[in-house]
Amino acid sequence: MLKGIPKIISPELLKVLMEMGHGDEIVLADGNFPAASHGSKVIRCDGNSATEILESILELFPIDTYTKHPIALMEVVKGDPVETPIWDEYESIIAKQTSIESPFEYVERFAFYDRAKNAYAIIATGEKALYANIILKKGVISE
Amino acid sequence: MLKGIPKIISPELLKVLMEMGHGDEIVLADGNFPAASHGSKVIRCDGNSATEILESILELFPIDTYTKHPIALMEVVKGDPVETPIWDEYESIIAKQTSIESPFEYVERFAFYDRAKNAYAIIATGEKALYANIILKKGVISE
Amino acid sequence: MLKGIPKIISPELLKVLMEMGHGDEIVLADGNFPAASHGSKVIRCDGNSATEILESILELFPIDTYTKHPIALMEVVKGDPVETPIWDEYESIIAKQTSIESPFEYVERFAFYDRAKNAYAIIATGEKALYANIILKKGVISE
Amino acid sequence: MLKGIPKIISPELLKVLMEMGHGDEIVLADGNFPAASHGSKVIRCDGNSATEILESILELFPIDTYTKHPIALMEVVKGDPVETPIWDEYESIIAKQTSIESPFEYVERFAFYDRAKNAYAIIATGEKALYANIILKKGVISE
Amino acid sequence: MLKGIPKIISPELLKVLMEMGHGDEIVLADGNFPAASHGSKVIRCDGNSATEILESILELFPIDTYTKHPIALMEVVKGDPVETPIWDEYESIIAKQTSIESPFEYVERFAFYDRAKNAYAIIATGEKALYANIILKKGVISE
Amino acid sequence: MLKGIPKIISPELLKVLMEMGHGDEIVLADGNFPAASHGSKVIRCDGNSATEILESILELFPIDTYTKHPIALMEVVKGDPVETPIWDEYESIIAKQTSIESPFEYVERFAFYDRAKNAYAIIATGEKALYANIILKKGVISE
Amino acid sequence: MLKGIPKIISPELLKVLMEMGHGDEIVLADGNFPAASHGSKVIRCDGNSATEILESILELFPIDTYTKHPIALMEVVKGDPVETPIWDEYESIIAKQTSIESPFEYVERFAFYDRAKNAYAIIATGEKALYANIILKKGVISE
Amino acid sequence: MLKGIPKIISPELLKVLMEMGHGDEIVLADGNFPAASHGSKVIRCDGNSATEILESILELFPIDTYTKHPIALMEVVKGDPVETPIWDEYESIIAKQTSIESPFEYVERFAFYDRAKNAYAIIATGEKALYANIILKKGVISE
Amino acid sequence: MLKGIPKIISPELLKVLMEMGHGDEIVLADGNFPAASHGSKVIRCDGNSATEILESILELFPIDTYTKHPIALMEVVKGDPVETPIWDEYESIIAKQTSIESPFEYVERFAFYDRAKNAYAIIATGEKALYANIILKKGVISE
Amino acid sequence: MLKGIPKIISPELLKVLMEMGHGDEIVLADGNFPAASHGSKVIRCDGNSATEILESILELFPIDTYTKHPIALMEVVKGDPVETPIWDEYESIIAKQTSIESPFEYVERFAFYDRAKNAYAIIATGEKALYANIILKKGVISE
Repeated sequence: MLKGIPKIISPELLKVLMEMGHGDEIVLADGNFPAASHGSKVIRCDGNSATEILESILELFPIDTYTKHPIALMEVVKGDPVETPIWDEYESIIAKQTSIESPFEYVERFAFYDRAKNAYAIIATGEKALYANIILKKGVISE
Repeated sequence: MLKGIPKIISPELLKVLMEMGHGDEIVLADGNFPAASHGSKVIRCDGNSATEILESILELFPIDTYTKHPIALMEVVKGDPVETPIWDEYESIIAKQTSIESPFEYVERFAFYDRAKNAYAIIATGEKALYANIILKKGVISE
Repeated sequence: MLKGIPKIISPELLKVLMEMGHGDEIVLADGNFPAASHGSKVIRCDGNSATEILESILELFPIDTYTKHPIALMEVVKGDPVETPIWDEYESIIAKQTSIESPFEYVERFAFYDRAKNAYAIIATGEKALYANIILKKGVISE
Repeated sequence: MLKGIPKIISPELLKVLMEMGHGDEIVLADGNFPAASHGSKVIRCDGNSATEILESILELFPIDTYTKHPIALMEVVKGDPVETPIWDEYESIIAKQTSIESPFEYVERFAFYDRAKNAYAIIATGEKALYANIILKKGVISE
Repeated sequence: MLKGIPKIISPELLKVLMEMGHGDEIVLADGNFPAASHGSKVIRCDGNSATEILESILELFPIDTYTKHPIALMEVVKGDPVETPIWDEYESIIAKQTSIESPFEYVERFAFYDRAKNAYAIIATGEKALYANIILKKGVISE
Repeated sequence: MLKGIPKIISPELLKVLMEMGHGDEIVLADGNFPAASHGSKVIRCDGNSATEILESILELFPIDTYTKHPIALMEVVKGDPVETPIWDEYESIIAKQTSIESPFEYVERFAFYDRAKNAYAIIATGEKALYANIILKKGVISE
Repeated sequence: MLKGIPKIISPELLKVLMEMGHGDEIVLADGNFPAASHGSKVIRCDGNSATEILESILELFPIDTYTKHPIALMEVVKGDPVETPIWDEYESIIAKQTSIESPFEYVERFAFYDRAKNAYAIIATGEKALYANIILKKGVISE
Repeated sequence: MLKGIPKIISPELLKVLMEMGHGDEIVLADGNFPAASHGSKVIRCDGNSATEILESILELFPIDTYTKHPIALMEVVKGDPVETPIWDEYESIIAKQTSIESPFEYVERFAFYDRAKNAYAIIATGEKALYANIILKKGVISE
Repeated sequence: MLKGIPKIISPELLKVLMEMGHGDEIVLADGNFPAASHGSKVIRCDGNSATEILESILELFPIDTYTKHPIALMEVVKGDPVETPIWDEYESIIAKQTSIESPFEYVERFAFYDRAKNAYAIIATGEKALYANIILKKGVISE
Repeated sequence: MLKGIPKIISPELLKVLMEMGHGDEIVLADGNFPAASHGSKVIRCDGNSATEILESILELFPIDTYTKHPIALMEVVKGDPVETPIWDEYESIIAKQTSIESPFEYVERFAFYDRAKNAYAIIATGEKALYANIILKKGVISE
């Protein structure tokens, strides 16, 4: 543990967040996401929800401001009547910590999988909500 | 995720719990414990409390009944006026899932470190309570 | 060994089953299947039949319900007069543990090999029956 | 699979049995034995009994004839009223395949653990019987 | 060494032969074959002839009966007046241990190299005869 | 780069600082220190002075308050007339960021080397001042 | 440290510079560059500016004279009003240590990323200036 | 050192020369050649000239006689007025140890680089002469 | 294969023989010797006799002349009526290739095992003769 | 190759020389020295004499001035009438590049071997002179 670093973030996750540069992406995957088969670098956070992790990451991690919608969600599959209340939670967390308006891009399920394969890392959370997978694009630290 | 496996337990932790045999020990270390320097096998569970993890582990893991006090706590250092309310929580979790009476052995701080070095694995939890480190000795599964 | 985990399942196999996510596939290969050359991850279960292993896996592993026929068998090669009584055994095991109707898709031999190459893992069983190779697609754990 | 090799023996186990030389020892450990912490080389055979494996190994593996009691069992702990019927099964398997008289040496529990640490390999069987751990010392193939 | 295993076969070679499944191929390469650059898995048998090794392998290894000519030889390059007496030796060894009629397929030199690259393993023998390279396709063990 | 993390700290160094627990030590070694031969984990910071690095580390890293003198300096060798002005710089950096009084323990040169061997990591700085090596003992983060 | 080698250069960086041959390229990346995801070999120099590192490298490293513009800068994105004063610093450093006239080639942002992927190594500096990424092509040492 | 092996040849180089088979190629690269980026296997011989190494290699290594020009040189770039006296040295070394007439094929610079990438190994010599890179194709040892 | 290198010697064995220096030892172990458990570096030569290998090695390998009896044999165990005709074969091979008189030292069985553990490498031959294990101490190549 | 670095020094050797710190030792071993068995880090320089390498190393490498005799030679074994003219060459090389008077310590043969085992690295040169092994202790770079 270190001063000022959220306790939910493991040493390895902190290293990964720090190694990432402008434009690199990280996936917060829910508990059913095929993380091990889609990520060359997978960080397990089994006991935590995606919202807790998102909140902690945003304390440290700048979101890209060069992209219109720097955060990606998995589009609801056509015909699926499911509700996605977690998106509202995500939105309010992001609103609190960034000034990005309409941050979300919606990505079709299999396109989302492909994008996850190219991400810098996948965090395998224990999130149980449906359609909770989310991708963050890293921005720039300027003085 | 699998049916009937507590969600807080990662695939790697589950493998470690299963590989362990009669008499092997596992440490649940609090957030300040020097886990990386004392364990040859360290499993990070940064975002979780030791009580949550203990509760989940005991659903799967038999405690040794061949040893008088199969669970070890770190003795309060002499002169330290600290309270250890987490021990009561541990006790009630253990009472719920096992029938062991007076499960605890109290181990002096540096002897505890040595014992941790010989344990099969250390789980680095995010537990913030003081004197929260705890060692479990595995028992036998008999039909 | 752990409480409630079928004894036939090794620590490594349990970890693999747990790491898999929605849509990932696992092959139960018979004793003559070229597992080592087709799987990047191969788990040996030489002394066990595929039926025993299937039965144990289904206690823990959810089958995909988003796919019409989430379980694949290798189609009988044209002209081959062989009988495949093991398919009936598979069917009754699946019927006991899931509520999937007509679970099977039949895949041509070489297409089956290709699919095995993309599976998350191959379990090399000691099954001696003919046409006993079987692929399971993992589903979702929802609360 | 190969002609004449018992099907229960995995490729890795066969390699290990063949690499061993005069005087090297192998442990057949029961399901509760702490194999992972005591063996530098561990071969998992979770779904099989120790008797099945012993029988198959003895088809290939010569027992040392230079040692009086080339096979070691774990002594019953003093005061333990347990019966050890599996020893009779071992004896009859050995009698069928070798001509060694009174093959067994009885080793105290912790001495047995130490000896297992120095063995060439440990086979982690799924054997459920008590006091089923057994050590074989390899002999010589002479023409 | 083990009972009933030809002494010329190393532990590693035995493991490789056993891991192979239906349709996998193994190359017995002569002393001048570029084995190290064409095989991802190379087993050195420098001091032995290909005929000795072939004879020992066929005691254990089933040849594929689903393929018309399950054994491949390297075709004599056009215009090369060389004789290939080793083919007759191969033929009589095969005739003694299998019932395959006309076992040989003749493969052009560079096609042979490509096929060697896809084989499961290459055995680098010390064979000095010309055109001695030979590929075996594994068959099925059925009870 | 991340928000609030001093830029001089590399991802790997941050991970190491975070992995360390109560009582673990880290060495800031000057440019002539035999870091590669004394540290199992060495982090290169060739272009930076020890004072810059110390300052940045102390923003994140708690110093042990359970030890009387939790920071070690290498004692001036007897008879050496050298001045050690860098110690004053260290003192004022420490005074600014902690409330430890008389933080320094002075360690004989070869005892210092031995202690460095047992430290969790050595940072190989480019510091040119004499007697600039310094060891920090990690303290506890409490809420 | 060695005689005559600039102190900012780490042992690993020196080895990399020396291993490179005619035509190989090295990237000096600024603090926001996605170095870890674009370089198979990444050397961290977090605490140093790109100008300091460039100056030190040029003491040892010959720039290619067979290429018209052997040094590449990342072109300013169209519409971006940013100034790039660091280019002038680069120019004067290069002018002092080489005799190359108009050394710079300007490369579009994504083409620059692709070229970085094929470079021999990326140095991840702590440079904070904008558009500070720079690629050097190695020349020849002739006597 | 061994009897009859030229002292300039390292154990690793000798192993590589011996592992190579008919048609495999090895590059003797001069001091400016980008060996590390073009060879998956690179053997450093920094302190030696290419002529010394060529002479020693040819004592052991048969040149291919099935190819018209089994030795490749890098063609002089058009317009380059350089002289290549080292080619004459190469020619007389080859003439002394083989009976190949007109051994050289001349390969365009970038085609030479591509061929080097496919070679079995690259020897990074300290040769300072221009256009000194040379590729040898291995022949056959026949009794 | 290379000119002048005995064909029985593999590339790896040649490298090992060459890496060895003055005073290093190599074991030629018979087929029943526990090579895998006693040698950190083991070279398999399963299909060859120890006499063939000894003969080939001595063509290249100088025997130490600074030691009285530079070659060690395993002493016949007391009471064992076995004959050791292979020692005479060894003697005549050594006499042909060296001028060492009375080359043999006789080492008690368990002392021999300990010495094998400290040898540079063990060659696991397929030798079937009894008491055929032999240790060679390397000498010096002088011009 | 780099400007100002002697060409005989390989990238790996340069890295090793630079990693070494005050008091670390490096061995220049002659061609018969058992380098592979005594050094955890061995750098091959087979084609070069120890004098050439010493000369190049001393251009970069400071010799310790805190030790009376910072360079060690292997003492002539008692009774050995050999001459050691290479020592004079060493002396004159050292005299040219340092101002150390009477640099040599003479170490008994087996004590020399033990010291080599603890050195940071061993350079395996092709030096043929007798008693040519030499150990250098690294000093300090001060501005």
